[in-house]
Amino acid sequence: MKKIINHPNHVVSELLVGMAKAHPELKYTEKLEVISRKDKTKKKVGVVSGGGSGHEPAHAGYVGTGMLDAAVAGNVFSSPSPDRIIKGIEEANSGEGVLLVIKNYSGDIMNFGMAKDMAEMDDIRVESVVVKDDVAVPDSTYSTGRRGIAGTVFVHKIAGAKAETGANLDEVKAAAEKAIANIRSMGMAMTSCTLPAVGKPGFVLGDDEVEIGMGIHGEPGVERTTVKTAAEVAQILLDKILADYDYSNSEVALLVNGLGATPLMELYILNNEVEKILTEKGIKIHRTFVGNYMTALEMSGCSLTLMKLDDELKELLDAPCNTPALKIF
Amino acid sequence: MKKIINHPNHVVSELLVGMAKAHPELKYTEKLEVISRKDKTKKKVGVVSGGGSGHEPAHAGYVGTGMLDAAVAGNVFSSPSPDRIIKGIEEANSGEGVLLVIKNYSGDIMNFGMAKDMAEMDDIRVESVVVKDDVAVPDSTYSTGRRGIAGTVFVHKIAGAKAETGANLDEVKAAAEKAIANIRSMGMAMTSCTLPAVGKPGFVLGDDEVEIGMGIHGEPGVERTTVKTAAEVAQILLDKILADYDYSNSEVALLVNGLGATPLMELYILNNEVEKILTEKGIKIHRTFVGNYMTALEMSGCSLTLMKLDDELKELLDAPCNTPALKIF
Repeated sequence: MKKIINHPNHVVSELLVGMAKAHPELKYTEKLEVISRKDKTKKKVGVVSGGGSGHEPAHAGYVGTGMLDAAVAGNVFSSPSPDRIIKGIEEANSGEGVLLVIKNYSGDIMNFGMAKDMAEMDDIRVESVVVKDDVAVPDSTYSTGRRGIAGTVFVHKIAGAKAETGANLDEVKAAAEKAIANIRSMGMAMTSCTLPAVGKPGFVLGDDEVEIGMGIHGEPGVERTTVKTAAEVAQILLDKILADYDYSNSEVALLVNGLGATPLMELYILNNEVEKILTEKGIKIHRTFVGNYMTALEMSGCSLTLMKLDDELKELLDAPCNTPALKIF
Repeated sequence: MKKIINHPNHVVSELLVGMAKAHPELKYTEKLEVISRKDKTKKKVGVVSGGGSGHEPAHAGYVGTGMLDAAVAGNVFSSPSPDRIIKGIEEANSGEGVLLVIKNYSGDIMNFGMAKDMAEMDDIRVESVVVKDDVAVPDSTYSTGRRGIAGTVFVHKIAGAKAETGANLDEVKAAAEKAIANIRSMGMAMTSCTLPAVGKPGFVLGDDEVEIGMGIHGEPGVERTTVKTAAEVAQILLDKILADYDYSNSEVALLVNGLGATPLMELYILNNEVEKILTEKGIKIHRTFVGNYMTALEMSGCSLTLMKLDDELKELLDAPCNTPALKIF
């Protein structure tokens, strides 16, 4: 196994310490593996997300002004325990309540749900939303219903921006729900990835083989096929996304996401093809984001995400924010 | 070859078109493969860089306010021809002259040099600086003298910020030269990378083998050895860097750079180790940058860069900038 690590059991804590050292505006809570904002002077709704590690910069990289107030990390590809999530809720709470943004995996649903109940017993008002943006398959290895993947980053941004306006918990939740309703994603994997604690690839793809619709933990997709051109990848993924939701005559935000090991060169080449197809269909792209936003360790591959925008979502998307993952120099 | 591309001959143009589509503030000049800033209202010294493609986000990703005015792309791992560089100079010139930031590779030195001479015949004043930050080897496959690698990004930032202050060409050059004098880097590769036009890896490393000091085009380093822990990688690379330049009792900027396929998780784990060593040695880290800043296609591995700061460099490093590679949401 070729990884720059010290010991498989320490990857999560050391990653978060290394992140907190690089970004002194972040607070790291040891053992509970929570990254939160140091500056909590403003009374506002707190926004918390998290989940298994291995998706960096998600989720801790999105903690900062205008996005998350806290991110809770589980072990690699494994849901954080409720005590960790409660700590995240406490860190994010300034008296106005907390919204949990959960990706739809059974472990996360259970653990975030338990933490919500327990926090409410401590008189913290908590609401939650569940992201299910992956159109690839109706149910999956670790989820009942669609998986939550890269579109989650848009939900972080929308909820975080809404909270920053001083909106109350119901309003922040409503904005997040609107974003979720308007978001669809789908991905493709070209190589496997290796969990540090396992030491060998979770699955094997042949030298000329890719998997369409694979999940961000290596969950099965819809088809194993030969390597496609960038134009074909764009077409295959968009066909499925556009068949699932009517984006025609609308304005969208576009995320061309890398799964960890795909060079930016390829993501930009893919973006060129995606733009051609969307433009031809009369779909107006308001903003495009290209990069590694929601990864799967060192998996190579990509996903595409569209979010339909109305005036409110556009304003929230464009509102300033400042986080480690998306920070000016 | 598993790449999201259409045809090996089109990767550079399609990458740059895809980038210009994602970032409408950029201008793309077809065939000459130049990315430049659309907003050129300000009279200021122009800063131009470039080189072979395959190092994305370098160099086009650093075009924007406070960094580069134009980036010139060659084919993958191959220097851009002088006619392309002249176009970059023309795009960057607002009458105050242009500084070229060149990485030390023989092809770049020759082609940027010819372009400089030709631009001067057109009465554009041009100066150049050469980055030679890689302490691994004294000479290399494509360079006489040390190679220019990830530290180049700091030079872009310093020169770009100085130009933004309204400084004249000599002053911008002096700031860039000061940065170069204060910068040292060294890297390690864990896997090879495949040039699109070749279709197979440029070299082979064994399953348990890494190469210390390898260049960003796969040039030989100093040692092939077994996989190291993050702590060992930090120690090996810093030992060589700190032996080459006296950073003791100084403040530095630190860049923990990924070569393309290394997950952010591992880079942050490495940063944790680097910080321990530097702190123990009394070297104060003013700012830390962690991510894929100067890559080598889908190579996995890392490099470390230190830049010693004085008051001027600190101010220039911290000055606002806004580029595709380092942009707020």
